[in-house]
Amino acid sequence: MNSSSGQTWAVSEHKTLAELAEQMREFTGARDWHRFHDPKSLMLALMGEVGELSELLQWLSAEQAEELAKSDPLNQRLGEEMSDVLLYLVRLADVCNVNLDKAVQSKLRSNEERFPVADFHGDAPIKN
Amino acid sequence: MNSSSGQTWAVSEHKTLAELAEQMREFTGARDWHRFHDPKSLMLALMGEVGELSELLQWLSAEQAEELAKSDPLNQRLGEEMSDVLLYLVRLADVCNVNLDKAVQSKLRSNEERFPVADFHGDAPIKN
Amino acid sequence: MNSSSGQTWAVSEHKTLAELAEQMREFTGARDWHRFHDPKSLMLALMGEVGELSELLQWLSAEQAEELAKSDPLNQRLGEEMSDVLLYLVRLADVCNVNLDKAVQSKLRSNEERFPVADFHGDAPIKN
Amino acid sequence: MNSSSGQTWAVSEHKTLAELAEQMREFTGARDWHRFHDPKSLMLALMGEVGELSELLQWLSAEQAEELAKSDPLNQRLGEEMSDVLLYLVRLADVCNVNLDKAVQSKLRSNEERFPVADFHGDAPIKN
Repeated sequence: MNSSSGQTWAVSEHKTLAELAEQMREFTGARDWHRFHDPKSLMLALMGEVGELSELLQWLSAEQAEELAKSDPLNQRLGEEMSDVLLYLVRLADVCNVNLDKAVQSKLRSNEERFPVADFHGDAPIKN
Repeated sequence: MNSSSGQTWAVSEHKTLAELAEQMREFTGARDWHRFHDPKSLMLALMGEVGELSELLQWLSAEQAEELAKSDPLNQRLGEEMSDVLLYLVRLADVCNVNLDKAVQSKLRSNEERFPVADFHGDAPIKN
Repeated sequence: MNSSSGQTWAVSEHKTLAELAEQMREFTGARDWHRFHDPKSLMLALMGEVGELSELLQWLSAEQAEELAKSDPLNQRLGEEMSDVLLYLVRLADVCNVNLDKAVQSKLRSNEERFPVADFHGDAPIKN
Repeated sequence: MNSSSGQTWAVSEHKTLAELAEQMREFTGARDWHRFHDPKSLMLALMGEVGELSELLQWLSAEQAEELAKSDPLNQRLGEEMSDVLLYLVRLADVCNVNLDKAVQSKLRSNEERFPVADFHGDAPIKN
């Protein structure tokens, strides 16, 4: 994936989920934070970040949200909070020995089967 | 998504976030679900999946959670719900024109600066 | 709040938060569930219910949500999930020795000071 | 906070849910915030507060959480964030015309039926 040649930037732009997990493991290990990172604690941390993401959109109308989200300053803020959600999710998967790459591909395949295009075209898969 | 070379498996196991976003865009486009996918609606869907993930751990002790999470059936269930969280997060980023790859690398760099190893070794960065 | 007279229904319709906490304490005690009800576990359970509530609204437009929420079947479903959120919140407060009645009145007073009518009329108190 | 009759204190300490809803309706009406308070927006605001509550507990061990939650400064902080969750929940119920008092009593009755003491004594009602 890389080389001698200054392509590090490209690499850092396209980490796989496994590489992200590795990065986070090193980051937290260096700070001796592994002992805080049990599944339930990481789940609460994930909820904290989901809450921060949610707050960015809460008082905008649907139309405002769609429009403002695409440019700064909101675009920048959304990226920051989405990153926090992603990083805790990746970390949670890592401590649970979940291969998130594999799990997500498996989920995509099962979604294809569960929601055939012919049956669900235009209807939301409303739960409950 | 790929070709004659037999590398399809490798590819499908290591999608980048941008590839995942593309996959989700096609999946939802084929079902005409784009019209449901505004930022606030996707945020609520993300919360729904975070809730399902949370329920898997709620009544386990910290020790049980750490142990049971690593083997089936819980490991499998965690992978499924984590995937749902990831897919809605990726979709939310996509409709907001957020480059999640880039945002997460930028966040990792800023975390390195914000939490120097020397200062934070062993102390949780407790908020509030 | 009442008497000898068959007004029990009125009472059961207007429990105070302290009475709700007491009811939940008895309910969980009778089932020996107290040992599952530590703060972090209840927090995860609360999230699970918030997620179920969120799912009821996720694919509705803002206008549909406002309209459909007020009549059945959605009104009934919302009441059920809101109750679950409330019950776990009351239970969480109870195990943390938080007097929710008192806390909420104190919060209301501080909100009055923080958001003077003259300054905030018509502007959302957008965070961030 | 009080008056000639001496009953004000009792009232302000023991608001019913209906009274809380009324208080919030007045508070938001006076600031012309009703237009921000549609169901989906309030749901996102609720999530924001759930996230803040969650952050207070995230890095504590189960034992620390149980102990620290009961005294200040954590007890005070928990009460503040629980109040925010409660207030948005009450407000959400109000805009949805949900009688939360009634819904919660109905839920308690159905929980009694769903989880008979004899069958569930000591077993967590683990979902999934």
